[in-house]
Amino acid sequence: MTLSGLARTRRAVWTLTQRRGKATAQAQAQAHTQALGGATASSSSSVRSQNDALSGNAVGADEEERSQRLLRRNTSIPGFSPSELIVKKRNGRRLSREEIDWFIQGFHRGDIEDYQMSALLMTIAIKGMSNQEASDLTLSMVRTGSTANLASIRPDMPKIDKHSTGGVGDSTSLILAPLMASMGVVVPILSGRTLGHTGGTLDKIDSIPGCHTTLSNEEFMEVLERTGAAFASPDATGFAPVDSSIYSLRDVSGSVDSIALVASSVMSKKLAANPDALLLDVKRGRGAFFNNLNDTASLASMMCSIGEDAGIHTMALITCMDHVLGGSVGNWLEVQEAVRILAASKHDVGADPRFETSDEALSDLRDLALSEAAVMLGLAGKAGSFREGFEMARDKLETGAGLDKLAEIVAAQDGDPRVLFNLSAATPPLYTQTLYAEEDVVIQDVNARDIGNAATLLGAGRTFAGDAIDAHAGICIHAKVGEVVRRGEPVFTAMVRDPTVTPPSGNPDTDYLFLGGEREYRLRLSRGFDLACRGVVLAQNRPENHVQPAPLIEYLVDARGVQPFKNL
Amino acid sequence: MTLSGLARTRRAVWTLTQRRGKATAQAQAQAHTQALGGATASSSSSVRSQNDALSGNAVGADEEERSQRLLRRNTSIPGFSPSELIVKKRNGRRLSREEIDWFIQGFHRGDIEDYQMSALLMTIAIKGMSNQEASDLTLSMVRTGSTANLASIRPDMPKIDKHSTGGVGDSTSLILAPLMASMGVVVPILSGRTLGHTGGTLDKIDSIPGCHTTLSNEEFMEVLERTGAAFASPDATGFAPVDSSIYSLRDVSGSVDSIALVASSVMSKKLAANPDALLLDVKRGRGAFFNNLNDTASLASMMCSIGEDAGIHTMALITCMDHVLGGSVGNWLEVQEAVRILAASKHDVGADPRFETSDEALSDLRDLALSEAAVMLGLAGKAGSFREGFEMARDKLETGAGLDKLAEIVAAQDGDPRVLFNLSAATPPLYTQTLYAEEDVVIQDVNARDIGNAATLLGAGRTFAGDAIDAHAGICIHAKVGEVVRRGEPVFTAMVRDPTVTPPSGNPDTDYLFLGGEREYRLRLSRGFDLACRGVVLAQNRPENHVQPAPLIEYLVDARGVQPFKNL
Repeated sequence: MTLSGLARTRRAVWTLTQRRGKATAQAQAQAHTQALGGATASSSSSVRSQNDALSGNAVGADEEERSQRLLRRNTSIPGFSPSELIVKKRNGRRLSREEIDWFIQGFHRGDIEDYQMSALLMTIAIKGMSNQEASDLTLSMVRTGSTANLASIRPDMPKIDKHSTGGVGDSTSLILAPLMASMGVVVPILSGRTLGHTGGTLDKIDSIPGCHTTLSNEEFMEVLERTGAAFASPDATGFAPVDSSIYSLRDVSGSVDSIALVASSVMSKKLAANPDALLLDVKRGRGAFFNNLNDTASLASMMCSIGEDAGIHTMALITCMDHVLGGSVGNWLEVQEAVRILAASKHDVGADPRFETSDEALSDLRDLALSEAAVMLGLAGKAGSFREGFEMARDKLETGAGLDKLAEIVAAQDGDPRVLFNLSAATPPLYTQTLYAEEDVVIQDVNARDIGNAATLLGAGRTFAGDAIDAHAGICIHAKVGEVVRRGEPVFTAMVRDPTVTPPSGNPDTDYLFLGGEREYRLRLSRGFDLACRGVVLAQNRPENHVQPAPLIEYLVDARGVQPFKNL
Repeated sequence: MTLSGLARTRRAVWTLTQRRGKATAQAQAQAHTQALGGATASSSSSVRSQNDALSGNAVGADEEERSQRLLRRNTSIPGFSPSELIVKKRNGRRLSREEIDWFIQGFHRGDIEDYQMSALLMTIAIKGMSNQEASDLTLSMVRTGSTANLASIRPDMPKIDKHSTGGVGDSTSLILAPLMASMGVVVPILSGRTLGHTGGTLDKIDSIPGCHTTLSNEEFMEVLERTGAAFASPDATGFAPVDSSIYSLRDVSGSVDSIALVASSVMSKKLAANPDALLLDVKRGRGAFFNNLNDTASLASMMCSIGEDAGIHTMALITCMDHVLGGSVGNWLEVQEAVRILAASKHDVGADPRFETSDEALSDLRDLALSEAAVMLGLAGKAGSFREGFEMARDKLETGAGLDKLAEIVAAQDGDPRVLFNLSAATPPLYTQTLYAEEDVVIQDVNARDIGNAATLLGAGRTFAGDAIDAHAGICIHAKVGEVVRRGEPVFTAMVRDPTVTPPSGNPDTDYLFLGGEREYRLRLSRGFDLACRGVVLAQNRPENHVQPAPLIEYLVDARGVQPFKNL
């Protein structure tokens, strides 16, 4: 290694001691000694620079530094070498529980560098992991943070979490959680944020005025105790914090699409909450993370295996994400759809007809929510069959109790529940653009990915994690695939503008760049509208010509295997 | 991404601006803008955190920060996204010259993070590279540093470099360079350091009193002009500086053994020097980097292809590294062997018989040097056939002109040439341990890797790059595989102690840990001796029983292909 190379590595080590800022200096010194001990314990030449990096360069370095290193080298605290474990995985061998945990905890403490973690993540992405390895990885990630004590909440009631791998227009969690809570199941929803073309439950809940989802572990427990359901960010509750560090690395170093890494990322938060059971909605299709059935089924199976391994009864549904679920994509728009479904015929929720989809357009969303409710009732031991569970859930939905429960949850999470019963009272979007049918047309296809991306362009989603979003932006497709839209009627409406954000005044030439600048809104509106036009395929009124959607639920997966899903 | 994740990434970005300390603040600001422009140009979601990391978190960040980011996003400097290129390679697709160069230059500037480079290196190590990609990678690495202007040196003489991939006891470069220089070929040797069980030419030259190999580019040219040959460190001449950064990363993140990465690392320095021709000695066997013939041949072919692509006529010999070359392993010990061969029967070099191998033991080293000389004379256009070249080199060697030339080179590199003509005048090692034959034995096998590792334990080599080494440490095996050692005669001698290093006085309980402490020397001596005992296999005097060494030179490789080497 050259001096410049060493100098770089040494700077990197120096940075390391500042990086995560958690360990005390003493703990770090110990950790360093551990790393050195680990290197000493192994005889591979691949350890050399790691050791070297930690101990400085003897060429030109003074004797004291060198003797310090020699002293440390002779400590005998056991450990492994990062590069040896990477090479082991690279050679297609399985890592042991101890090896995985050593790597993850070392990375979390700051002893293992980002560049070593990104290399390991890449080998995992390329070489894969066994179910056992993925399970060990997940459990190790859980150990980096706090865990929930769900057993103390309503001890007589089962606790069941539900998670989706990310869809477009999918607000089922907003329907399921209150509906299940109203049926005696505690539903601790740990969800994610909107990213790319897929939506996130947390952002939808956050679009309800006053509502917030950054609950601490204690607040999470409190809302669950009070209402029977809660929507929480696992980052705020402190569950598996290393996951976000790992995700950030994967994101910028090309290892996002890895079955084992996706599975462990999702499941680490679930295991930290430790519910009795878990229902996973694994999306497949144009609008999903995976389109290929093999990959989707492998992901679902691996997540079930990880869950069962941790004592959480886990089932997964593989569901179709070719088309937008419901008729709307956008945070507040999707809340409205969930509210309309929960209201059933018992509540008048006063939706604004300009941004309302047809009842027909809501049918797939309602069916998926009821199907998932049926599976959850089965997991809860409250229904003996899917049919029984489905009917129980449908009957309960009809009573409107789910909306009352959602109002309770919203209130418990500091939101204003009144808006749920008077949707049109929410300030309308400032700018809208509607495509009207020039003649009688049938909606032939709605590409979920295009519409998801269009909604992101409008401001409803994030291109980059951490972007601000516009809660009132989105697209409302007024009719469903196969439905006829008559001449002069609206096909879809694109909209932007969270009216609560005040545009800054600035240089008119660059003003459109600023959030809140009118010109930016108009630019966003026209771009999103254009992309939505590509995603919504219209045909002359020949109903036999439209795309036949795939079955909504394709497969049922549990730890035993994958089987075709037979509806009712 | 969570706030903690963002905070980490942001710290990483802050570190980046300090890291390589080369670019000015202005250039870095521009580089950041470029990176952002690059991200904007691409639409993949995988760019998001990179961008995010560079621009901060909009959730909770003030509007000004966000607007700054939006402004930068709209700059249109073209580029790529690191994670997109990594994913492209991961998916088995070839990277273009522009993509590779963008990544390497970006890394060298500090715009691309270590964790992104380590992920790319891992994908290259697993997925491989085409010859074209490896060539583009090498040329891009060359562009990070300075280049030599060899054409200005002795314009009438061909310039031919020679490089070995790393052997045990291989001092052929010390023989070849002066021999060739005495025959009208300019030999600019750019070599490496001792690492692991393999030796490095630079450390051997450095063991000659006063001699140094850290020549600047100008000093390198000056020595070449004066003597016709020079031994130089490419780090000191400033050739392909990014290579050492890349190597450091590979070393600690599990991507050392990659054909494309080894080839580009070696060839980047060669291309920077830009000789007319290049001879590569690609070692194969127990003591080499690769043992497998396919890997060795692929490495040789790829290096030839990279050389020819850059206009350097490149040939490679695949040579056997199962046994120690010559009889000695250790820096000063190997200089002595090279000097004895160069002296031929014309000079008395006064070697100390206690540390001298038999003449028979030097025959393979001499043969390899003459064979390589023959190929180099062919490359130089001075010999029409291998046989002619071999005979020319042998005849020249016999004149002793090579040793006179080595003395010239040593003097030009600030060394004391007198010691070459009076080897035993060099201060002897302080501690030695010799294995004597208890009965008549035949040396059945000498395992190059064991002896290399034993020499490292003695202090002759480095376990970690940057370790100090003991120039006088090493092992001298007094006879060759197949030779008989009579009862009471020495089989091998292990030795330690560079007498120029003064031991520090210190705590007697830990003193053995310090370089120069007597107890450490004794510990090193006994450990090295023990390992050498394992590497030297003795049998009762049945000459038919010893291991038949493989042919010294197995294959000849050039850009056209691999062919068995026919000796003479």
